[in-house]
Amino acid sequence: VSAARGRRVGDSGTREAIADAARAQFASHGYHGATIRAIAAAAGVDPALVHHYYGTKESLFAAAMRLPVVPSEVLAAALEPAARAARSGPGFGELMVQTALTLWESDELSDTFLGLLRSAVTSEQAAVMLSEFIADSIFATLARVAGLETPKNSPEAEYRISMVATQMLGLALTRMVLGLPAVADASVDDLAATVGPAIDRYLTGEIPVPARRRRRRAGGH
Amino acid sequence: VSAARGRRVGDSGTREAIADAARAQFASHGYHGATIRAIAAAAGVDPALVHHYYGTKESLFAAAMRLPVVPSEVLAAALEPAARAARSGPGFGELMVQTALTLWESDELSDTFLGLLRSAVTSEQAAVMLSEFIADSIFATLARVAGLETPKNSPEAEYRISMVATQMLGLALTRMVLGLPAVADASVDDLAATVGPAIDRYLTGEIPVPARRRRRRAGGH
Repeated sequence: VSAARGRRVGDSGTREAIADAARAQFASHGYHGATIRAIAAAAGVDPALVHHYYGTKESLFAAAMRLPVVPSEVLAAALEPAARAARSGPGFGELMVQTALTLWESDELSDTFLGLLRSAVTSEQAAVMLSEFIADSIFATLARVAGLETPKNSPEAEYRISMVATQMLGLALTRMVLGLPAVADASVDDLAATVGPAIDRYLTGEIPVPARRRRRRAGGH
Repeated sequence: VSAARGRRVGDSGTREAIADAARAQFASHGYHGATIRAIAAAAGVDPALVHHYYGTKESLFAAAMRLPVVPSEVLAAALEPAARAARSGPGFGELMVQTALTLWESDELSDTFLGLLRSAVTSEQAAVMLSEFIADSIFATLARVAGLETPKNSPEAEYRISMVATQMLGLALTRMVLGLPAVADASVDDLAATVGPAIDRYLTGEIPVPARRRRRRAGGH
């Protein structure tokens, strides 16, 4: 799963210009606020060319952030097969923890993942951008694979997936950044068996789902 | 609960020198590695005077980091009363989440807390220091209040408390730093009811506790 579509000889300058423009637009307007139209204008090209080179907004984001892969595609590919078997029943959470830890700690992804986390923690702008990106791309994929409604259309699905995010990002923070010994030393399988049932409960268990929520932009600093 | 003991007129220069020396020693040697003896030597005073001014190593750390309170003391005071009632049975986790969120989001503490988290995420040195501090001071207090063994002497207690830390720090990261909307907008009570049972399970439920662990320094980057 590559972050960028096939390239022809000679168009690398234009591609690069689009990625540079996208990086600036995402940084200043967030993931939601940045539009393909504005990115195209800033790069001095037609919006159709942006679509031609990069396909979806997420692929363009992945290219602009120099991610080696498109996160939701990798996640979906890794989770789909077993999700068909478990379909958010018992065992799905365990699988999700195993998959996420294995991806984050892979040579290909760990620097990128930690870099995104670091920038989000130190820059409000980056936090808004990452938060919106997670909510748009990762959450939709997770919900689909887990058999929930689309988070954008369902406050309950959004709350459930967000609670999964609290546990998964906390695992990443304590294991990969803080290096809390008992978390850093534990095997992926032990962590998956420990955390998996909590994930299952957030996805499908009885939890108090806030009835209605005021919509607002991410980045509640 | 104040981070510093009573002061006499005229000794503020010495106190300040000790706090400055402590800050430097904690930063370069970590929380475990920094000794009262070395801090006293760096400040040019007798170790007894460090004890006299600051009491415990944790109080000295709190003063050096300019924390407005000594974290484990505030935590213990906030958790003790209800812990006597719940004693790590159902309901204790919910109380812990309520207490932690209320503390972290208080005017007095939120800047300090976010500052520590930011520095730990951006500096390996700060991560080691914070991780060791959490493991030494916060974990011991949490384990005592929850009725577990001392984490330093029990790999099982350390693993259980560390898993609590993965969830609690993930909640802080997503709510206060990333500002994921569904987490940032939820009430403290809803979050406590959602996350509490996961905390209870980590503390007392059936989870696969790694049998033996190689001891090592924190900060597994």
